[in-house]
Amino acid sequence: MDQAVRVKNIGLRGVTVADTKISYIDGDNGILIYRGFRIEELAEKSSFLETAYLLLNGFLPGKGQLEEFSQQVKASRGLPDYVVESLKKLPKDAEPMDVIQACVPLMAMTDPDLREQARGADVRMAMRLIARLPVVVAAWHRIRNGLEPLPSDDSLSHAANFLWQLQGEKPDPEMARDLEVCLVLHADHTFNASTFACREVVSTQAHMYAGVAAGVGALSGSLHGGANERVMKMLFEVEAAVKAGKDVTGWVRDRVEQGRKIMGMGHAVYKTIDPRSKILKEMSLRLGRKTGHENWFHLLTQIEAEALKIFQEKGKTTIKANVDFYSGSVYAMIGIPVDLMTPIFAISRVSGWCSHIIEEKYAEAQEKPALYRPQAEYVGDYCGPVGCVYQALDAR
Amino acid sequence: MDQAVRVKNIGLRGVTVADTKISYIDGDNGILIYRGFRIEELAEKSSFLETAYLLLNGFLPGKGQLEEFSQQVKASRGLPDYVVESLKKLPKDAEPMDVIQACVPLMAMTDPDLREQARGADVRMAMRLIARLPVVVAAWHRIRNGLEPLPSDDSLSHAANFLWQLQGEKPDPEMARDLEVCLVLHADHTFNASTFACREVVSTQAHMYAGVAAGVGALSGSLHGGANERVMKMLFEVEAAVKAGKDVTGWVRDRVEQGRKIMGMGHAVYKTIDPRSKILKEMSLRLGRKTGHENWFHLLTQIEAEALKIFQEKGKTTIKANVDFYSGSVYAMIGIPVDLMTPIFAISRVSGWCSHIIEEKYAEAQEKPALYRPQAEYVGDYCGPVGCVYQALDAR
Repeated sequence: MDQAVRVKNIGLRGVTVADTKISYIDGDNGILIYRGFRIEELAEKSSFLETAYLLLNGFLPGKGQLEEFSQQVKASRGLPDYVVESLKKLPKDAEPMDVIQACVPLMAMTDPDLREQARGADVRMAMRLIARLPVVVAAWHRIRNGLEPLPSDDSLSHAANFLWQLQGEKPDPEMARDLEVCLVLHADHTFNASTFACREVVSTQAHMYAGVAAGVGALSGSLHGGANERVMKMLFEVEAAVKAGKDVTGWVRDRVEQGRKIMGMGHAVYKTIDPRSKILKEMSLRLGRKTGHENWFHLLTQIEAEALKIFQEKGKTTIKANVDFYSGSVYAMIGIPVDLMTPIFAISRVSGWCSHIIEEKYAEAQEKPALYRPQAEYVGDYCGPVGCVYQALDAR
Repeated sequence: MDQAVRVKNIGLRGVTVADTKISYIDGDNGILIYRGFRIEELAEKSSFLETAYLLLNGFLPGKGQLEEFSQQVKASRGLPDYVVESLKKLPKDAEPMDVIQACVPLMAMTDPDLREQARGADVRMAMRLIARLPVVVAAWHRIRNGLEPLPSDDSLSHAANFLWQLQGEKPDPEMARDLEVCLVLHADHTFNASTFACREVVSTQAHMYAGVAAGVGALSGSLHGGANERVMKMLFEVEAAVKAGKDVTGWVRDRVEQGRKIMGMGHAVYKTIDPRSKILKEMSLRLGRKTGHENWFHLLTQIEAEALKIFQEKGKTTIKANVDFYSGSVYAMIGIPVDLMTPIFAISRVSGWCSHIIEEKYAEAQEKPALYRPQAEYVGDYCGPVGCVYQALDAR
């Protein structure tokens, strides 16, 4: 294209770069849909594997299709030996997201579909990634604690089996269902930073694993997947402050006046309620009552209410609780350590990443030039048409 | 921002997304500069480590600075034990780019600067990545061939030491210098797909290793770093065709008429000569004479000449040989296996990736919203305001 477009230094906000059939956000009305279905309905009625099937294939599976997909996932859960052996060699204090990012290309090495160029092969690779990412997280958590990884229990749902492989106990069914709903809620979110990274990488014709590893990297950032962990750290700070006699109102006001963010509030796209946050808030209350951690829920609602009031006063009426505000408390109530909260996000979002990778690779009527290759404006030195003069080292 | 911009399905071509001080391409005049310096001058007079220093820091180092940087690189070359042990467990037929992508987050795990948020810490991490990526490639090549990795020889230049660790012989000095020039030529190229992937990933505040792993993933694509390998495969095809009695002219015409690409020709930005390709072409001829592979050079010039003629006839006057057209032959003449050609690209480009990551993280007057988060237009199903109706599994 010859027409120059300048959207400089805005992080591509508000810039429409592609078509998609996978998901849709109506930020003004707080609506999120996957393949035409409202997130509220999927959260209530669907399972994670059914939702993953929907995202990957574009339609809800029939009974036989879902059965077959679930069987394939279950049969694919075992990690290759060299992956487990590598995990056992790693420093025990490694960041879990670094462990996942390393394991993705490691798993590529024995994927029988890696060198195929066909949609079906990519769907099978996606299925294996969806099956194995939770197993990597659970195995790593056990290994870093000096325990052996556990075999999967294929009688359990996707989330329940993860909790079993992570914790070594068969989980409470209600908690397992809550985690399953969390996985459904986090499965896709259009062109967020990690998904865009996946699409960008495979636009070069790199394989799916190379793209997913990029997604893991982007998600690890504290402004993206790391946000739920930061909410929990904030919550623990507030908890300590309250114990020391301070009130929540004062803590929130101080923080805003210091120019610091209230973690888990505000979103690039939602300007009203984040529909995922509504579901997670209810879940946090219910699980809080069940587990004796209702205080976390109450502290969060107090922080939220006070922050909303302050933002209102400042005329910032679009900053609301986002998906990360209550999700951390839910995970903590289910017994998930804080540094595995972003990994949980990854084991869900991998379904969206893979769906977007397949769309990027196999979109009908692909009109765009193959790879993403933006431009930058050079604002550095330039000493004229022949460039700056290179002085010999001795003369510098 | 409120103003909607639509640059849909053009792969961000011609779209200016950021400021940079690192490098500049004048595609109309065939000019590439790093930090103000013409690539021709750096190729002639600089070393890879000096160029890497220039890219990272923005100025040519003084004698003491270069000495210190070189010493740091040399002292950082040893891989952590767990990385080497993991390499020994991997399937021997693993794609080398997958091996590199896995090793980047593995190396993060023991980087003492990983959790720092300071420019100096990022420069040190960059230095370690520049030091170790060649060692990973060399170690992997030896391990897959049943050999032990070799220790570095710190009396050698960066390229010469790589050849030593890869091949187990002290390289011919002229060849080592040629490879050094190749590393200088590939070190940066503004917002190419892999560099943009690095910047995108760290815009979430992910660490440098997470970003570099994304860059490795993007570079592995056959439309990006993989192009030099595809040129070599094309060259071997032509060589076989010629042996079977066919002429080069006919082969090229047939290929173009079949609608297939001539690998290594055409570029998203250069519309005239790629200044790197000019230097590599001369190098290919000289090395061809030296190594007895002049036939490769002559076949490539014949393919180039015929392709230019055909493109001229078709009015496509901007498709010229790019950096990949002659680089593969140069690497092959130096004795580098075809599947390590993209990895060689990576051990050079890592200097550019890290420079861009540092710029993304620490740009003065950072005005852009923190992370890259574009939009997509939803063109899938949508069954009205309440979404599609979820039918129970039994009813489907």
